Amino acid sequence: MTSDSTPVPAPTVTTVPPAPASPEGSRVAATSGMPVVTMIGGGQLARMTHQAAIALGQRLRVLAASADEPAAQVTPDVVLGSHTDLDDLRAAARGAHALTFDHEHVPVAHLEVLVAEGVKVLPPPAALIYAQDKLRMRRKLSELGAPIPAYVELGADSPREALIEFGERHHWDIVLKTVTGGYDGRGVWLIDDREQALAVLDEAPAGAALMAEQKVALRRELSAMVGRSPFGQGAVWPVVETVQRKGQCAVVIAPAPGLDTELAESAQRLALRLAGELGVVGVMAVELFETIDGRLLVNELAMRPHNSGHWSMDGAVTGQFEQHLRAVLDYPLGDTSVLAPATVMANILGAEEAPSMSMDERLHHLFARIPRAKVHLYGKGERPDRKIGHVNVVGAPGGDVDDPDYVAQLREIAERAAHWMSHGVWTDGWDVHGE
Amino acid sequence: MTSDSTPVPAPTVTTVPPAPASPEGSRVAATSGMPVVTMIGGGQLARMTHQAAIALGQRLRVLAASADEPAAQVTPDVVLGSHTDLDDLRAAARGAHALTFDHEHVPVAHLEVLVAEGVKVLPPPAALIYAQDKLRMRRKLSELGAPIPAYVELGADSPREALIEFGERHHWDIVLKTVTGGYDGRGVWLIDDREQALAVLDEAPAGAALMAEQKVALRRELSAMVGRSPFGQGAVWPVVETVQRKGQCAVVIAPAPGLDTELAESAQRLALRLAGELGVVGVMAVELFETIDGRLLVNELAMRPHNSGHWSMDGAVTGQFEQHLRAVLDYPLGDTSVLAPATVMANILGAEEAPSMSMDERLHHLFARIPRAKVHLYGKGERPDRKIGHVNVVGAPGGDVDDPDYVAQLREIAERAAHWMSHGVWTDGWDVHGE
Repeated sequence: MTSDSTPVPAPTVTTVPPAPASPEGSRVAATSGMPVVTMIGGGQLARMTHQAAIALGQRLRVLAASADEPAAQVTPDVVLGSHTDLDDLRAAARGAHALTFDHEHVPVAHLEVLVAEGVKVLPPPAALIYAQDKLRMRRKLSELGAPIPAYVELGADSPREALIEFGERHHWDIVLKTVTGGYDGRGVWLIDDREQALAVLDEAPAGAALMAEQKVALRRELSAMVGRSPFGQGAVWPVVETVQRKGQCAVVIAPAPGLDTELAESAQRLALRLAGELGVVGVMAVELFETIDGRLLVNELAMRPHNSGHWSMDGAVTGQFEQHLRAVLDYPLGDTSVLAPATVMANILGAEEAPSMSMDERLHHLFARIPRAKVHLYGKGERPDRKIGHVNVVGAPGGDVDDPDYVAQLREIAERAAHWMSHGVWTDGWDVHGE
Repeated sequence: MTSDSTPVPAPTVTTVPPAPASPEGSRVAATSGMPVVTMIGGGQLARMTHQAAIALGQRLRVLAASADEPAAQVTPDVVLGSHTDLDDLRAAARGAHALTFDHEHVPVAHLEVLVAEGVKVLPPPAALIYAQDKLRMRRKLSELGAPIPAYVELGADSPREALIEFGERHHWDIVLKTVTGGYDGRGVWLIDDREQALAVLDEAPAGAALMAEQKVALRRELSAMVGRSPFGQGAVWPVVETVQRKGQCAVVIAPAPGLDTELAESAQRLALRLAGELGVVGVMAVELFETIDGRLLVNELAMRPHNSGHWSMDGAVTGQFEQHLRAVLDYPLGDTSVLAPATVMANILGAEEAPSMSMDERLHHLFARIPRAKVHLYGKGERPDRKIGHVNVVGAPGGDVDDPDYVAQLREIAERAAHWMSHGVWTDGWDVHGE
């Protein structure tokens, strides 16, 4: 802390003007001859991409809705604007060597205009559309012979009849989803019976297209993350296990424990193939269901750094954020080897009630108790179930990801750390005040 | 690339104003309740500290001389000014929870004023003085019984006589050093004979105090890096071997191969003890000579992140930049365990002649040939022998740092990568054009 008596700044002191969103704006990077990358969206993915850009000598520019978004807090090259406004997108793209994404919600029509104007939009709109539109994604995957759950389109004409027909066929063991715009559990309804299904359909806002999917008998959820460059090089990380809570990712175990080697390799081959067939550039997460009977089905595609890849920041030779930058700039891709037998990532998800202890105090206590925890905070306010950070715990050498005790212990540490950071409560009842 | 035809930004688009150097300036971090740290100096150490601050949810403010300094390029919170101007220092300190350093050249008198005004200056001036003034450091270390080379002060009165007496006693096998301001080989002269020594003394600018030191019969140079918090917690990394060229660090091997365990532990104990006795807060590098006859002598102290600690960014659970932030903010310190049997760091040192290939092209070729290289670029222009980046190569699991082949191979990869990045030439004669 400084005393209130510290004098006002001397006139000789000035602060650095922000880089204008113009070719001059990339002067600093330009003098070093290194690239400028524009990322649309100022969230935690852009924030962590900036960390990687610093090491590579690049300049990351973000288009953010406000100055206090996670990425806007930490990079000097920020354009304030909306990802749905073409002129804002144009302003953010000027002088950049590539334009890429923190989220999937940019209108493809705008992106096609940018491409026509010479902007390198990566992944290209023609690929990104499959991450935006679940129905087009399903159709394309069927076309490519990729395994997916049974689904039905609930189009404008007679959606009710289509839903009833599909529901009856699957004994109402189905899931309803909005075709576009859903994420982190939003726009997804787990259905048990006819009434519930019809209610969702009736309550759906006009024009919000829905689709229905068969509920899959799951063993667990997996994710296969891949990076692909314009040149066509692909690199895939080990397949990981993702644990969902309230419809969003809570824990990731890398690699997926006890996963059959052939199944793991088929998932990796599938991810590489889809990246190629869809023309993806950058990193892509292929979210998978591992069924009770040992099959893999594709659940979702995310064409950007993804929560299921956060473990790689500390647990792999090359993290997903560096790999995404390397891919969109057409550098050769980095080594995806693991640094440890297992790494566990646990999300810090905002608690129902804000803890009495400040985030900073919680961090002090966490570091005191778990010196090995790798904490990544996003600079976001705390709200229930909001992703405000994550913790990686890297396993000690000599362990084995197929040893349940080794993995269980790592997971316990990671989840305890994350729960402490969000709730200010130790899951094992430890009392910081020793009472 | 974008076409020149992209329209000018729409008026709705604005860029983020820089945070003023005032309590309001830390609004963003303040809303999240996380700390603001001011670092004096905008060099690569501040740049890499910013990467660590992002993960910890902190805000790093730098006092930089210009907007294109390595750290000023990548953090939005920059105060432009001089580290020798008290008002600039005050402006940079306002609203910060701690003030620390990218280099050791801030006048202690200014720092004492800041302390009196309530600024948390860490390391405190009373400790920093020993990193600024080699003579005071030597006197203090003798007082503390720490092993150091024989030395003599060449004070204002009869420096010539003192030099001759000391030189004769050591058969002119001595080193001349400026008492303050020297670094990376500057202000150090290796002496062979009387004439040379007297010439250095005669040519020394008036008022530039010199000292003489006995040249030590070296096996190699080592560094013991330690972190210490105000609370008094200390944490030490494994002792590393540092290889110097032209008087500056070129390569670091972590841990130091084939180092006697007792000697390694005594170096770690010495570093922890000195950090405590000197009241250091933050990280400190204790640069050591390992003598031919197996003793350790203290060469220099650096009270900040240090080149000999760059390996820890990729090779240890907790890197030196995160540890420095944890220390100055009095968090419990991070785990200093290694992630691999060995990690080798090689500096990218500017070539005599700028390579024809751009830095960006060189990076493409490096990634193509060495996918495991961890590259850290500083955004600096290329000048002969200038530190413009470094490369870390993390050893594969199962290796052994005491296996000369394992270490030699890692070192060869790291040095080849670094030399390629600076010179655009492969040390093994590989021709990128296949000619």
